Amino acid sequence: MTMDMTFLGTGSAYPSPHRGASALALRTEGECWLFNCGEGTQTQLMRSQLRAGRITKVFISHLHGDHLFGLPGLLCTVSLNSNPDPQQNLNCVDIYGPRGLRHFLRVTLGLTGSQLLFPYAVHELEPTSDQSPEEGQLSVEMTAECGPLHPQERPGRTISLDVSSDCYTLFEDKKFVVKAFRLFHRIPSFGFCIQEHDRPGRLKTELLKELGVKPGPLYGRLKAGESVTLENGHVVSSCDVLEEAIPGDCILGDCSSVLGEGPPRFCNGADILVHEATLGNEHREKAVDHGHSTPEMAAAVARACCARRLVLYHFSQSYKPCSLQKEGDEDDISELKRQAEEALQDSDVEVILAEDFLTLPIPLRRPR
Amino acid sequence: MTMDMTFLGTGSAYPSPHRGASALALRTEGECWLFNCGEGTQTQLMRSQLRAGRITKVFISHLHGDHLFGLPGLLCTVSLNSNPDPQQNLNCVDIYGPRGLRHFLRVTLGLTGSQLLFPYAVHELEPTSDQSPEEGQLSVEMTAECGPLHPQERPGRTISLDVSSDCYTLFEDKKFVVKAFRLFHRIPSFGFCIQEHDRPGRLKTELLKELGVKPGPLYGRLKAGESVTLENGHVVSSCDVLEEAIPGDCILGDCSSVLGEGPPRFCNGADILVHEATLGNEHREKAVDHGHSTPEMAAAVARACCARRLVLYHFSQSYKPCSLQKEGDEDDISELKRQAEEALQDSDVEVILAEDFLTLPIPLRRPR
Repeated sequence: MTMDMTFLGTGSAYPSPHRGASALALRTEGECWLFNCGEGTQTQLMRSQLRAGRITKVFISHLHGDHLFGLPGLLCTVSLNSNPDPQQNLNCVDIYGPRGLRHFLRVTLGLTGSQLLFPYAVHELEPTSDQSPEEGQLSVEMTAECGPLHPQERPGRTISLDVSSDCYTLFEDKKFVVKAFRLFHRIPSFGFCIQEHDRPGRLKTELLKELGVKPGPLYGRLKAGESVTLENGHVVSSCDVLEEAIPGDCILGDCSSVLGEGPPRFCNGADILVHEATLGNEHREKAVDHGHSTPEMAAAVARACCARRLVLYHFSQSYKPCSLQKEGDEDDISELKRQAEEALQDSDVEVILAEDFLTLPIPLRRPR
Repeated sequence: MTMDMTFLGTGSAYPSPHRGASALALRTEGECWLFNCGEGTQTQLMRSQLRAGRITKVFISHLHGDHLFGLPGLLCTVSLNSNPDPQQNLNCVDIYGPRGLRHFLRVTLGLTGSQLLFPYAVHELEPTSDQSPEEGQLSVEMTAECGPLHPQERPGRTISLDVSSDCYTLFEDKKFVVKAFRLFHRIPSFGFCIQEHDRPGRLKTELLKELGVKPGPLYGRLKAGESVTLENGHVVSSCDVLEEAIPGDCILGDCSSVLGEGPPRFCNGADILVHEATLGNEHREKAVDHGHSTPEMAAAVARACCARRLVLYHFSQSYKPCSLQKEGDEDDISELKRQAEEALQDSDVEVILAEDFLTLPIPLRRPR
């Protein structure tokens, strides 16, 4: 099994010719999961090596237009390019996002007479009242009465916060479990954590040597979770010689802070933490005012989570990609990386600056 | 006064890296009117010489997504880049389009928490039941209950067909009168006719010579609509020596045919007739099935209207722009031009193939 992550848009607020609006694709074994879908995402997909028709799940972190306005058009275009035989399009596209998303899609697809050739379902996350200032919360009237289902819409779930774990469990299949957690932004925003199922940690090889276990089949059995009995009668349990399971990837929506116990718990030790950094440290006040983060703030989250890699994205459009930066440009994107690195200088966290079409391979381990 | 027309998107169905979705800007004296706003129009505007902030009026021919999905994002981006002082943004952006458009904008802007810094009003055109098959008509329920106005929304007009003239009068200002007329498509679609106010025709110079009127101030007075008395006592009336007023530009939405008396009347003698040609003549059946036109069908409308220039646009994405066409490509865009020219070979109509960012200057005359 292989997996990779491709940034389709790394700009904040709106798409520009230099940076698409927020969108990120996670690809594994022929399936593609899309995280956010700003305007123009379908065109960015066409420019990339990814195929929009492979999208099986969509995750919307929050309802701001720069994360959402591309979704109706993307669904329409996937439909136009899909097999006209309805029997070939039985798989439901699952769409996850905050309350209000179901109404948004029903109205945009309905009023535009958009027929889809495949079924879709919107699973709504119920925000809590502390995820945004009061004026950022949608009234019940705005989301409650949303008329009949779109002809291709299947009933979706409404997912509430599990208070004991401080997270939303979106789904669990054979390979992955995907959870959402709460962020603080101008409107309710979420982060997503994608974990490989039963993903064992690394073997503690030094300890194994000390115990007299030689590399070979025993290693495989221990890694698969079994206990083994050595020739000397000593029983070695897998949990003694395995490092803790490696959490997966965490993709955070726009935020000025994370809320509750969810993020530090689920992102702890994450391979990749994708965090916004809309403005440089010197604009911290403005960033927080708008519900956004600076590189220093993103670094603090990465440090709290002991993430291995911190990927910065969602840059103000005033930060041109390195390749397009001109001498004298006021905002320097590489400065954002430097600021995050400075804040993490005594840690092992690697800082990566996302650009449109950057693809990061994600190491995976076979499930036992 | 100068005027020009810039194509921002010439593709049908969806935007691609080669052709934007439908959008066309008409520019005159610092104002910009936008006709249709498919997804990605704001990015196309950034790529062009036009300024989105100059847009004062938007016209949506019909509610299909490839003509509409870019509008919420465009409004948001114009707002983000406008003067934060509300006193500087008092001018209302007027948006014209079919019934349902008001609800579409209210829901998309409302659910995404989009605050605009300027007021807008949606003026809805009431379609007639013969503009589309029954399944293409929006139910009253879909458009009727649309909640409170967006905070920046001003009440818009609901404009019904004026049966006697077979048109919708959208507005009239000192310079222009803009009318809409009915087209037949899968959903109700409209064409727009932009006429210079009091735009006199050309002087019949041969006749003036015969009458003994010499070029000079008398010409100007005649052109301005006055009557003049010659030295020989003969009175020359301006209406005797002026050709008929020249109609303006007509921009048609998607259609397989025009409806009623409106189009031939208002487009008669149009300087520019912008007409869709989604597929080549050889795909006529498919085109009509989908409510679209071929070059031959567009040419027939241009001929019926005695248009001076016929501009083809809204091409299937399988037609690459000439500059990107490769040998062996099945669909050849220049073939569409040839087909229209063939159908117009015994006429004076000039055929123009629109491409993204093509700008056509439009000759204007000073109002008298």
